[in-house]
Amino acid sequence: MDKIMIKEMPQHVGETVRIGCWLANKRSSGKIAFLQLRDGSGFVQGVVVKADVPEDVFAAAKSINQETSMYVTGTVIEDGRSAFGCELQVSGIEVIGEAEDYPITPKEHGTEFLMDNRHFWLRSKKQHAIMKIRNEIIRATYEFFNDRGFVKIDPPILTGSAPEGTSELFHTKYFDEDAFLSQSGQLHLEAAAMALGKVFSFGPTFRAEKSKTRRHLIEFWMMEPEMAFTEHDESLEVQEQYVSHLVRSVLKNCQLELGVLGRDTSKLEKIQAPFPRITYDEAIEFLHEKGFDDIQWGDDFGAPHETAIAEHHDKPVFIVNYPTAIKPFYMQPHPDRDDVVLCADLIAPEGYGEIIGGSERIHDYDLLKQRIEEHQLDPEAYAWYLELRKQGSVPHSGFGLGLERTVAWISGAEHVREAIPFPRLLNRLYP
Amino acid sequence: MDKIMIKEMPQHVGETVRIGCWLANKRSSGKIAFLQLRDGSGFVQGVVVKADVPEDVFAAAKSINQETSMYVTGTVIEDGRSAFGCELQVSGIEVIGEAEDYPITPKEHGTEFLMDNRHFWLRSKKQHAIMKIRNEIIRATYEFFNDRGFVKIDPPILTGSAPEGTSELFHTKYFDEDAFLSQSGQLHLEAAAMALGKVFSFGPTFRAEKSKTRRHLIEFWMMEPEMAFTEHDESLEVQEQYVSHLVRSVLKNCQLELGVLGRDTSKLEKIQAPFPRITYDEAIEFLHEKGFDDIQWGDDFGAPHETAIAEHHDKPVFIVNYPTAIKPFYMQPHPDRDDVVLCADLIAPEGYGEIIGGSERIHDYDLLKQRIEEHQLDPEAYAWYLELRKQGSVPHSGFGLGLERTVAWISGAEHVREAIPFPRLLNRLYP
Ligand SMILES: [Mg+2]
Ligand SMILES: [Mg+2]
Repeated sequence: MDKIMIKEMPQHVGETVRIGCWLANKRSSGKIAFLQLRDGSGFVQGVVVKADVPEDVFAAAKSINQETSMYVTGTVIEDGRSAFGCELQVSGIEVIGEAEDYPITPKEHGTEFLMDNRHFWLRSKKQHAIMKIRNEIIRATYEFFNDRGFVKIDPPILTGSAPEGTSELFHTKYFDEDAFLSQSGQLHLEAAAMALGKVFSFGPTFRAEKSKTRRHLIEFWMMEPEMAFTEHDESLEVQEQYVSHLVRSVLKNCQLELGVLGRDTSKLEKIQAPFPRITYDEAIEFLHEKGFDDIQWGDDFGAPHETAIAEHHDKPVFIVNYPTAIKPFYMQPHPDRDDVVLCADLIAPEGYGEIIGGSERIHDYDLLKQRIEEHQLDPEAYAWYLELRKQGSVPHSGFGLGLERTVAWISGAEHVREAIPFPRLLNRLYP
Repeated sequence: MDKIMIKEMPQHVGETVRIGCWLANKRSSGKIAFLQLRDGSGFVQGVVVKADVPEDVFAAAKSINQETSMYVTGTVIEDGRSAFGCELQVSGIEVIGEAEDYPITPKEHGTEFLMDNRHFWLRSKKQHAIMKIRNEIIRATYEFFNDRGFVKIDPPILTGSAPEGTSELFHTKYFDEDAFLSQSGQLHLEAAAMALGKVFSFGPTFRAEKSKTRRHLIEFWMMEPEMAFTEHDESLEVQEQYVSHLVRSVLKNCQLELGVLGRDTSKLEKIQAPFPRITYDEAIEFLHEKGFDDIQWGDDFGAPHETAIAEHHDKPVFIVNYPTAIKPFYMQPHPDRDDVVLCADLIAPEGYGEIIGGSERIHDYDLLKQRIEEHQLDPEAYAWYLELRKQGSVPHSGFGLGLERTVAWISGAEHVREAIPFPRLLNRLYP
């Protein structure tokens, strides 16, 4: 008899199989018990008919609690009524670990309670589905960039300096020195792009920001590609192709999960490159037309502004050419205007906010030196970064995609805290 | 005319192409110049014949320095003498960024100098080859675990507690709380495995260890799978299949890079599952026979011991069943002996040391509670971890593979510092 995963059942119809699983839920009468079984690969209904099984098996089915672990044997049968397509006619139950007073019951729980029990909450059907979608987005990311010849480069997390000044940084002692947790690998990736052409990183980043919104995490994962010999417009094309690929992959490989989450997939079907591009100037004008009088040219957008712009489109929107003054020091100036830079933020549909920020980088030594001085950054800390412009500098561009916001958007999750296994939030360092 | 990457040249023989590239090296006479060109995807020789090109093109070829960036146009021709198989008959050179006094010249440099210039050193042929092999190992890792239904779970880096006590941890303030940088995601992965069955993480880990050996980094990447319903022996099979897959993938996809590094590939060809397994007891006995009198039953192995054991085999070796006293609190006891645990370290060949540590985890609540107390760990911090044993506990196993040691071994690098883009070492936080 084969030991298989639930996911593999459709290939074993008519066979007797054995699965290691947990009880997710149960209904029973005097003559039949319906066990909702899960093993991480999927969920299946196990049917235990009193008349068909030994007495102790039916007794076990009646007595087991939610989250009891067990080996279950049975025959796989087709079931056209379920989304999964199969159910299991149970012939044996071998309990491994009992469950006592499992804290998460079918009743409603408050968010803080669920977050305190995140190590258990991950077992519930919706959280499970979001983690599968996150996994698919990660898989599709590697697929996309590997297929295009990008080399994965892991920039350091512990750094002596930080790209955008020293606010909102976590500090630690590195033996006798001061070190900070990275907010972006970009500077190191630029060096690596000059060595390897097209590179990407995909790792954790840290912002000690006292924000408490549904879009902010203290610790989050970022995907950062950096491309030598690449101007800003080419980078935008990579971005829209990449995001389209992510959505297409989830639609293709996570239909069951999207169903569990009740995601409106018709909205996802529309996410195909190219994406609309509007300038920052046009965005400001649009917001004024819509009656927003709380924003002027030169201000950065807040969540309500981004949402208003997003609602006007059924695809993600690029906002290009932001004012120089509100963007980091390293962005390449617009060739025709000195008040804006060659950059873009990509705003996700449905109010999920900015999922990508990117730009062409300054490749001229003198200009970059001037910007470092204007921003009053420590020239010593940026010496190596500046030196790159003396040794065969080339136009280059890159961007960063926030994983959790992308997962939240594609899966339709309410809050980014559900888009990462163990979220780190203000006052949340446990479990 | 196509703009292509050097790597694509074999598909463009006879065509005129354009590449964005840097000058890696140069030889020239009065009538001909040989340019070693690199673009990150590969290296190619560009041949500039004075009689065949405009005067300014030959003048450019003569005057450009190492690491100058440029667009080069030319015709791809077959070249059976080079490992790459092609060369470029240059017809045009357009300089983009000049290079002045490039610090890394063909002469010998000291390690500290090369490490200070790591942002440039990555451009050299051997470092470039090691990064490509690292990339292939990462790619093959995702391939292996995705194909087997594992779900990527990213455990938190910032934690309020640490698996193995609180020594050698980096500390930071998390707003008003104390936090530490993770040394392993294992505990969180165990929770996730109970939700998703088979999971893996692949991210940075941190050890504030004052070691200065060729096997130690302060910040390094670890691959950590965790599997529910999996006993120790099954985990060993996954480990040997995984490591064999990595070596096979590098042999298949990185022949050029292995050639650049002068790696003896006959040694790698032998790395095929299954791998030998010896017990800790046998290892001690073997070392005594070999004349080591500096180790007794109950001691952990040092580098010379691991190397002596490795030299006796031409494959990685599992050392299984270490004494309980020298292993972490969470390891499952051997069923027949209470002085050893169900664990294994995998020792790489050729003196590269331990590349994997793994074990079956304790799934019994009372035993785990007892161990936490014996190890004098804070029961509050481990409350959630312990609770997992009350809610459908199952036998489960996992392991951690150190990426940089694996890269160093497969590429034949001398020191792990060459196996990561920007190493963090004692006194090395720059660049
Ligand atoms: Mg913004
Ligand atoms: Mg060891």
